[in-house]
Amino acid sequence: MFTLGIDYGTNSVRALVVRCADGAELGSAVFNYPSGHQGVLLDPKDHNLARQHPGDYLVGLEKSVRAALAAAGRKRGFSPARIVGIGVDTTGSSPIPVDAANRPLALDPKWKRNLNAQCWLWKDHTSIAEAAQITALAARHRPQFIAKCGNTYSSEWFWSKLWHCLNVAPAVFNAAYSWVELADWIPSVLAGVDLPAKVVRGVCCAGHKALYADDWGGLPDKEFLALLDPKLAALRDRLYERAYDATVPAGRLCPAWAARLGLPAGIPIAIGEMDVHYGAIGCGVAEGVLVKVIGTSTCDCGVVSARKTVPDIPGICGIVKGAILPGFYGIEAGQSAVGDIFKWWVEVVCGGDGALHARLTQAVAQQRPGESGLLALDWNNGNRTILVDPLLTGALVGQTLYTTPAEIYRALIEATAFGARAILERIKDYGVPVQRIVCAGGIAEKNPMLMQIYADITGCTMQVSGSSQACALGSAISAAVLAGAHRDFPAAQKAMTSVKARSYRPIAAHRRTYDRLYRLYRKLHDAFGGLDRAADLSGVMKELLEIKRAARR
Amino acid sequence: MFTLGIDYGTNSVRALVVRCADGAELGSAVFNYPSGHQGVLLDPKDHNLARQHPGDYLVGLEKSVRAALAAAGRKRGFSPARIVGIGVDTTGSSPIPVDAANRPLALDPKWKRNLNAQCWLWKDHTSIAEAAQITALAARHRPQFIAKCGNTYSSEWFWSKLWHCLNVAPAVFNAAYSWVELADWIPSVLAGVDLPAKVVRGVCCAGHKALYADDWGGLPDKEFLALLDPKLAALRDRLYERAYDATVPAGRLCPAWAARLGLPAGIPIAIGEMDVHYGAIGCGVAEGVLVKVIGTSTCDCGVVSARKTVPDIPGICGIVKGAILPGFYGIEAGQSAVGDIFKWWVEVVCGGDGALHARLTQAVAQQRPGESGLLALDWNNGNRTILVDPLLTGALVGQTLYTTPAEIYRALIEATAFGARAILERIKDYGVPVQRIVCAGGIAEKNPMLMQIYADITGCTMQVSGSSQACALGSAISAAVLAGAHRDFPAAQKAMTSVKARSYRPIAAHRRTYDRLYRLYRKLHDAFGGLDRAADLSGVMKELLEIKRAARR
Repeated sequence: MFTLGIDYGTNSVRALVVRCADGAELGSAVFNYPSGHQGVLLDPKDHNLARQHPGDYLVGLEKSVRAALAAAGRKRGFSPARIVGIGVDTTGSSPIPVDAANRPLALDPKWKRNLNAQCWLWKDHTSIAEAAQITALAARHRPQFIAKCGNTYSSEWFWSKLWHCLNVAPAVFNAAYSWVELADWIPSVLAGVDLPAKVVRGVCCAGHKALYADDWGGLPDKEFLALLDPKLAALRDRLYERAYDATVPAGRLCPAWAARLGLPAGIPIAIGEMDVHYGAIGCGVAEGVLVKVIGTSTCDCGVVSARKTVPDIPGICGIVKGAILPGFYGIEAGQSAVGDIFKWWVEVVCGGDGALHARLTQAVAQQRPGESGLLALDWNNGNRTILVDPLLTGALVGQTLYTTPAEIYRALIEATAFGARAILERIKDYGVPVQRIVCAGGIAEKNPMLMQIYADITGCTMQVSGSSQACALGSAISAAVLAGAHRDFPAAQKAMTSVKARSYRPIAAHRRTYDRLYRLYRKLHDAFGGLDRAADLSGVMKELLEIKRAARR
Repeated sequence: MFTLGIDYGTNSVRALVVRCADGAELGSAVFNYPSGHQGVLLDPKDHNLARQHPGDYLVGLEKSVRAALAAAGRKRGFSPARIVGIGVDTTGSSPIPVDAANRPLALDPKWKRNLNAQCWLWKDHTSIAEAAQITALAARHRPQFIAKCGNTYSSEWFWSKLWHCLNVAPAVFNAAYSWVELADWIPSVLAGVDLPAKVVRGVCCAGHKALYADDWGGLPDKEFLALLDPKLAALRDRLYERAYDATVPAGRLCPAWAARLGLPAGIPIAIGEMDVHYGAIGCGVAEGVLVKVIGTSTCDCGVVSARKTVPDIPGICGIVKGAILPGFYGIEAGQSAVGDIFKWWVEVVCGGDGALHARLTQAVAQQRPGESGLLALDWNNGNRTILVDPLLTGALVGQTLYTTPAEIYRALIEATAFGARAILERIKDYGVPVQRIVCAGGIAEKNPMLMQIYADITGCTMQVSGSSQACALGSAISAAVLAGAHRDFPAAQKAMTSVKARSYRPIAAHRRTYDRLYRLYRKLHDAFGGLDRAADLSGVMKELLEIKRAARR
């Protein structure tokens, strides 16, 4: 038996064929979205805008699945007829305005070129003002709504985006019958769902991004939504009443898409989750195991048994029952930019390419902790956790006339690791156990230098997921459980996931230097982030110089 | 009648032949120091170290003067026989250890390769610890010594350097009979002086760098120097008792050097001053006229009549009677790195060359004030004025994932202009009149974009010196006054200096944006610089984003 995991990332979609018995990956294929800049529709006048053309998703679905099946077909014992289920993960919150037939407006020639009629990609930050208003209104009228998301509603999330659309493009908003998260929409397409009301919604996106909770009867009540705008309250009737965890199927593969993909019609489709959530499953997430998916941005996922009480954790962007594993609270934290910061430095500032990435990485590996005298903040795309503030920016301190691009590159890597440490300390402080960290994503796999820095800065051993396609693997695992190939998620994870032999242990001498640097990082973090409004930064540059001198001795 | 001005810069020496009647420049020549990196001896293990080989000065003296005379010789009416005087300016404090015959130790094969036996270039910062100790000892025992230099003795200055040499290279210190500032040593070479005691010392270096003042009997007393080290107290006897302003000649051209240069023997040699001080004269410095020499670093020079009382100005690195113009207090302030920061950005970080400088300059000219959302501190080489602290470093705030190298380049230019404004406000606050600003240096001449930013940020009209060789011109003016070609300095300046027709006036809309940015600059400046030890920086990034949004509207 095999299942298919389909992973919609920021720039491409990947399909993966997995053997249910042992998680062996028989074939995979990637399709790069053809529209916009690396698949993202941009607005040169507004760097907060990031949209995606839904047509790319459909072309990519067919191309990636067909190619993955073809690749798997070259392996002994595989045939598409033996695929027993499909799982899908996507970026999120990435809501799509759809018409009454569950068809994205952007597929209608009338709206095709309208940026506001596209999928509003997770990293779109155009709705900063709306997010701040939702935060303020919820704090006043429904504090429980935001207590589980760090008391701050984000511009990356569902309601901010819909409201912003209503504010800047009312024609689009009015033309939309409903809005569907990409993670729910792809399964609904595969299932041939042609009514928005029939789309099975996952609690992962609903709970983390749309303020959904069974505790208060699902989505925010109409009275509250009317405080935002009566049109949002009216829309609630055309959204959904309930959202489900991964025990509930999203549907069964419809004949049309079965034919298009070359798969058996009627096989079950797992509920859609966000990429990192299924990625966490693919990495073996469990109580005590924190999963970090390190990519353009970073997501940290942990789980705590739903039988326990999880406190509200200030600054943690999401605690949602069933969001990752059924029967567990899913805890999500993250950093808005990690790989994106390195890419910015190497490609935008230094004007280089992959070769320069490699050259700088090599140079960084020669440097000792602290020897550059630099300290950076990792906020080029705002801070998601623990400050939950998109209106923050990057910072670099300690430059001399001799500071090299490689030193700055390392400082940026270290900054993201300091940000990771701030998250780790916060969730541990609130009683979430972390015994192991398993990392996934291209950066975790390909960059031992970075992984060592993360181990040295966090003081935790870093393991790397055995699969380099952990998100797609997690989707395939969800499909395998749904199809009955395994008893439950823990059993499926035990059989189908692994970690690589090489792990990264903290080096004591490095930890000492990084503990000093982390204290300085927290000084800047707290001062610029608003946690300390009477900050004494007079010693920061001097201590950086001292650390530098000590490191060079 | 003609005079010769010789200007020893950081990377090269320039000779200039000037007509006394009208300041016409008949010929000039530049000689690049052949040793080290662009003339500077470096230590890869210690970026604070910057030395220079004295042999380069002598080769450069002959080559540059001969070439300048040859160039002037192609003009009608000129002959070397009509040269009536020589003036010399150099970097400073750049002390050279010399033997009992006034010969630099580094010219002795025994010491030739010893970095500590070379000229200790102005920008050498190896003696930070000694400078701090001198500051502390003076504050306790002789507060008057440092009251006129911002209450802080610098690692760039005479005593810090000598003491550091004694601490790290006692053999060199013990081998040195005396130490002579480069500005005094070159005139002494031209005059054929072969005893350190006979070197005529200028009050410019002595007063600004060596704590010399007639008020307390010249150099610091032996009792004080013994607090540093008894060997420094002992050295005082082999230094000098008096230092002189530009009314006193440094000597007359000796036959040997007259022959070597092709000049009449016996012509007067003006007292040596530091480059920017003679540069100020070449730019027309007078009461109410501030001169800014904008180069690798920046020096601000003003004068106030010696008949008035000048208060101590906190953070201003020097107020010395006679240091620039006889009969006036010379006031010196400065920024430790300006052009050096731009050079670092373009060449070290962006890996570019002159072409990239030009491309970035063009891109910067297209940007509006505030539109990058960036703010930088100009401290990559410490802060000379108004914080007088070499243990400060650069900082950059406001980066996003879209920030371009050109935007950072502009932010660095703006940072140097904010630093310039901080100096200007400080000296005006203490009653030094500033009606006009005249700029000199390659950057002022060649970069209208930068000059406009300086005008917009300081709110002052910026004029540019008519001569592109203001330092050498000032040296030539001093020689002309000494030789009797003019009655006094004001008369000589009136005849021999000018400003360019194009000046830069502040643009009102830019000023408003820059006033906002300057307030943020001062927040960072005061927080990292230690003036505000309970700083609220929580709004800085947000206000930068607001200014950016406003600028892009």
